[in-house]
Amino acid sequence: MSSAKELGERKIIELILNCLDQMPNMLLPFGDDASAVDLGTDKLAVINMDMLVRKTDVPKAMSLWQAARKAVIMNISDLAAKGAQPLALLASIGVPPDLTKTDILQIGNGLNAGAREYNTYIVGGDTNEASDLIISCMALGVCHKHRLIKRSGAKPGDYVAVTGSFGKTASGLKILVDGLSAPEMGRALVDSVLMPKARVKEGLVLARSQAATASIDISDGLAWSLHELSRASIVGFRLDNLPIAPEVERFADIHGFDSVELALYGGEEYELLVTIKPELWQKAAKAVETVGGSLTKIGVVTKEKHLLLKTDEKTVSIEARGWEHFKTN
Amino acid sequence: MSSAKELGERKIIELILNCLDQMPNMLLPFGDDASAVDLGTDKLAVINMDMLVRKTDVPKAMSLWQAARKAVIMNISDLAAKGAQPLALLASIGVPPDLTKTDILQIGNGLNAGAREYNTYIVGGDTNEASDLIISCMALGVCHKHRLIKRSGAKPGDYVAVTGSFGKTASGLKILVDGLSAPEMGRALVDSVLMPKARVKEGLVLARSQAATASIDISDGLAWSLHELSRASIVGFRLDNLPIAPEVERFADIHGFDSVELALYGGEEYELLVTIKPELWQKAAKAVETVGGSLTKIGVVTKEKHLLLKTDEKTVSIEARGWEHFKTN
Repeated sequence: MSSAKELGERKIIELILNCLDQMPNMLLPFGDDASAVDLGTDKLAVINMDMLVRKTDVPKAMSLWQAARKAVIMNISDLAAKGAQPLALLASIGVPPDLTKTDILQIGNGLNAGAREYNTYIVGGDTNEASDLIISCMALGVCHKHRLIKRSGAKPGDYVAVTGSFGKTASGLKILVDGLSAPEMGRALVDSVLMPKARVKEGLVLARSQAATASIDISDGLAWSLHELSRASIVGFRLDNLPIAPEVERFADIHGFDSVELALYGGEEYELLVTIKPELWQKAAKAVETVGGSLTKIGVVTKEKHLLLKTDEKTVSIEARGWEHFKTN
Repeated sequence: MSSAKELGERKIIELILNCLDQMPNMLLPFGDDASAVDLGTDKLAVINMDMLVRKTDVPKAMSLWQAARKAVIMNISDLAAKGAQPLALLASIGVPPDLTKTDILQIGNGLNAGAREYNTYIVGGDTNEASDLIISCMALGVCHKHRLIKRSGAKPGDYVAVTGSFGKTASGLKILVDGLSAPEMGRALVDSVLMPKARVKEGLVLARSQAATASIDISDGLAWSLHELSRASIVGFRLDNLPIAPEVERFADIHGFDSVELALYGGEEYELLVTIKPELWQKAAKAVETVGGSLTKIGVVTKEKHLLLKTDEKTVSIEARGWEHFKTN
């Protein structure tokens, strides 16, 4: 009989999904960033739940304050990707018996900080005895019925775009976990891991602009998210521009890494990957700029279901690699 | 420095709550059964989240199907207590590496069964690697703005009432955990632990009747719930009737237990404890009967903040005892 370790996370999810009756008229299918529930008005409730487990999700250098904040951010990020306004959060905490009072205060303050950063609140939750420290948060947001952005709406000819630049978290983890040095740009790289940001304003203005045809938050790496969006929309992508953070280029130079590799196959960047109607590109980019963000065109959606990246020298295939629990460690 | 084990669950919750900024116009305060969020329409979103940890919450005799179902029921029960209609659930699962494929299917099917029993659906969630099996569910419901039943509305003179009868789970646990025998009534007692029910229909008609002034679900035992309601409403209770299940009377007789003790200080009964405007008592009782339930008057709300139970022989004080994690084991 296969164990969870042998099955891997995605197979486990598939097994569970096969057990579940599907809600009629489900507005976001299983496997999208969040779930949407029709409330019988012009607004949808958008809900999401994500569990942080200290043993697997929290690098040693991350404080409990940062871990609790991150548990909030990763849930808010999923709402952002759907164009929903976060309203409130719940936090359910599995507390190991040896956690100290100081640890508990760090967790409480980190949860609050994450919520307040995005102008929302923790409104409830519970605590339970557990062996690992577990911080399971859920976020509730609202979205206008006609503005919800699914993963499945990308059409051939649409532009592919991202907020932010890439490679920082993969580099940051090499510093934090493998102990590599990066004196000059180390702070920015490490901070990308310890203090992730969710792109709420960007998601909201993209939803309002009606320019985005599909959206996903990049929690499992850019390559993996491209593959997810490709699967959901039944399209391919031809990319000709990969926004790699300048700190990552320098870090890769020093240590002899391939910066494209760092940018594609990292994870937990919490940027948004979106597809945009070409005729509304200017409007979308402008809207994101207005809220202090940036939207970078990285390629186009194709009918052929290949994921290709054209660099100066050659065109390479983007692999479906990304972080997966169980199998990778 | 105090550890979680020394602090106990309620102190940990207090420490965390003190860290949190409070949402303005919070419709249900921290510590109520669920949280309510104003959506800017006549409907409120009512949300709740509760974590089930196999090590502490699942007796050995409970199958994983039953455990997963229970993880759903305990969340639905909290919505029921607020008079909210459950709409959808999310499930976040912490998977230990040795869980088998059969275990995973049991969990998936148990989650689905719990949701479908109450005419709702699991619409999303995630899985994570963890040391314990953790099933963290959240439930989303809706409630008309003026029908939300808090814990804090009980007024002196109101009737105190409960759905169902008591003592079965405490007795059932003595059979399941301590191995006591109860040949004849054993099934009913054991089933109360393994197959709990949530009082959704009862909660909905009580909310609609506008008769209930306060409500709580009895997840930590009747005595503890009475104390919680007393604290929230700043009132006392004088009880003169304790509906003890007939199977519990017989079980107590055989083994020499005090049946009142079993009824007051058990837990996880998921019945509703409510206070009712006296002039609407008939209406409320009738409404609950109409949906196949029963509402039993057990006493009255008093201005004096004492919790008293009058039996044939004497009047006793109801103690603030109930299940608490960490400290009790």
